[in-house]
This record gives sequence, structure tokens and C-alpha cells, in this order.
Amino acid sequence: MPKKVDHEARRREISQALWRIASTRGLEGASLRDVAAEAGISLGRLQHYFRTKDEMLVFALRYIESLAQQRIRERIEALDGEPTPYDILRACLTGMLPLDEQSRIGFLVGIAHFHRAVHDPALRADARDGIPKLRSFFADQLRLAMRRGEVREERDADDAAMLLISLVDGLSTYILLEVHTPEKAVKLLDLQLSQLFDGAGAGPQ
Amino acid sequence: MPKKVDHEARRREISQALWRIASTRGLEGASLRDVAAEAGISLGRLQHYFRTKDEMLVFALRYIESLAQQRIRERIEALDGEPTPYDILRACLTGMLPLDEQSRIGFLVGIAHFHRAVHDPALRADARDGIPKLRSFFADQLRLAMRRGEVREERDADDAAMLLISLVDGLSTYILLEVHTPEKAVKLLDLQLSQLFDGAGAGPQ
Repeated sequence: MPKKVDHEARRREISQALWRIASTRGLEGASLRDVAAEAGISLGRLQHYFRTKDEMLVFALRYIESLAQQRIRERIEALDGEPTPYDILRACLTGMLPLDEQSRIGFLVGIAHFHRAVHDPALRADARDGIPKLRSFFADQLRLAMRRGEVREERDADDAAMLLISLVDGLSTYILLEVHTPEKAVKLLDLQLSQLFDGAGAGPQ
Repeated sequence: MPKKVDHEARRREISQALWRIASTRGLEGASLRDVAAEAGISLGRLQHYFRTKDEMLVFALRYIESLAQQRIRERIEALDGEPTPYDILRACLTGMLPLDEQSRIGFLVGIAHFHRAVHDPALRADARDGIPKLRSFFADQLRLAMRRGEVREERDADDAAMLLISLVDGLSTYILLEVHTPEKAVKLLDLQLSQLFDGAGAGPQ
């Protein structure tokens, strides 16, 4: 195996150890040494791949996000016929909810990142970069839906997109706190979507 | 000062030290010893008032929440005339957003609680208790708005209430990550409210 590929594979293995800790006892207070132990390697070996907890956390988050994006893409491709903007948005948004073990771990790693980013400008910049891209992608889908007569044209696509992103974040929080079930969260998301996609009588009212 | 009042006052002072840590470097990894140092007392003295970090965290959270509720109540009472369900909901929801230093600290302490509650059934039960009460209160306001013809009667009041609570949680997250400004978050909340309060032409459309 070429050296570069091997390096990346080791970083992924270590990330998976970090995920297991996030999923079981949580990342609060978890050290590089704890992750090394979970990965079955020495601290020195781990530091060959990640110098800091933040570097490891960001890599582990990006890695699980890329797997989530891959799953969402596959789900969209598996849809019958040409996917509509509604199909694409719903697949993305439900894909962001912690509905199964992998998406739950993704959300928990995201929370650990968030918890540090609040007090760290560099980590915040990282978050600031990701969300506006997602908002733009969703807003583009909404503008397409407006041209198709599915969403009212007087709506602001960027604002509607940010409402959806914020909503999914809050719905996810209350899944993890067991305030509502994953199924209920999906129902609430569908309610918001149906109120948005009411342009040509496509909505429930 | 009677002994019981004094005990409560000391617990509040210690809570304020915890808030300062939440606001500056964050509570991740903060120990009872750190909070004692911030409060200018010994660890033994702190443990006289709080035996565990969780006990202290829950008290500090309840204390800052009670101050926030007091501020919201005062804001509603200061409104001209009889407050409408819309006025009450908007005052509560904007009061939950981290728009100033005190509400920001409240949200940060809430996150630290959440971060532990995900891995702790007792702390989760605590969260499960609070949110449904808030949802019921909001749903009652929405049902009153329906009777006043301000919200369409075919809406489910409990679902609409939970959408608002979830939305505020997500909007708050993205204020702290500086994805949007506090002012923008209020604008997005108002957008959601205007779409909800569209019953008798009260909405923007």
C-alpha cells in the first residue's frame, strides 16, 4: 500500500476509535491517550497521525460527515425517476437527523466539536465555512422549486434554507435527550417541509 | 440571615462562578476544584454545598433559567395593553435566544448539561421533564390564538410548539458559532412566527 494511502487509512482507524468513545461514554474529558487506548496503539503512535485533540476531532468529524454525504447521495440516486428539489431536500435533511447509530455518532462528534468551537476561534471558523455552503445548496434547490411552482416565489430562499438547517439541529438535540422519538422528529420535519412546499397546492392545505 | 437562606445564597454564588467559567473557557473538563477556585473557596467548602459536578450543574442551570423566566415575565408585563398569544410566544422565544451575555451564558450552561445528559439517564430525565412543560405552555397559547382566529385551526398546536422550540435551539447554536448574527436569528424566528400566525390575514401573505 502506498505510504500516503496507509497514512490516511490509519487516521481513519483512529477516528473510528474516537467515534466509539463519542457513542459510549462521550468525548468530554477524553484525552489523546484515551483514544490511543481505544484504538489499541500507543500515545506516541497516535501523535504521529494527530498532534492535537482538535486536529483529531476535526478529521473524525469530516470523515463521518463524508460517509453521511455518501449515504445521502446513494439514497437520492436510488429514488425512482428524476429526483425533485423536494426529494433532494428531504433526503439531505433526514440524513442529518440522528436516526440510526452512524448518524447518531456523527451528531455526537459534531456536538463535541461545537462545544470546543464556542471557545475557539479557529474551530468556529471551520463551522462558519461549512454551514453557509449547505445553506447555499438548499437555497438553490428552493429556487428551483420556486421556478417549478412548488414553493411560493415571495419566500426568501436563503432564509427558508437556514430555517430548515436550524430546525434539524434542534430536532436532533431533542432526539438525543429523548424528548421525542426519531419518528416524531421526522414527522415534525415533514410538517415544516409541507408548509414550505405549498406553492401550487402541493402542501396539505 | 436564617441558615436555609444562607445555604441557598452560597449555592447561588458558587453557580455564578460556574457561569463565569462557562462564559470564558467553557465547562469541558472543568472540575469541582476549578469552580471552587473561581468562587474563591476551598474544595471542601464547595462540597458542603454540592457533592457532585452534576448536582452543581443542574442547580446552576435551573438558577439561570429562573432568572431568564423572570426577565421574560417582566418584558411581557411591560407590554402596552393586554398581551396577545403572539406577544407572549415571541417574548418567550426571543428570551430563549442567546442575545445578550446572560442568555448566552444560560445557553452555554445548557449545552454543558446536554453534553452530559446524552450519556446519563438521570440528567436526560431532567431534560425530558422541562421541555414538555414548555411545549404545553406554548401549545396552550397557540390554541388560544386559534380561537382568536390568528392561527389556522387545522394546525396541530403541540407540533407547532415543538417546531418553535426546536427552531430556537438550532438558531441559538448558529449564533454561538457565528454563522449568523443575533439580529438575523430574531429575523428568522419572526419569519417562522409570521408563517404560523397567518390565520386571519395576520401573516405577511
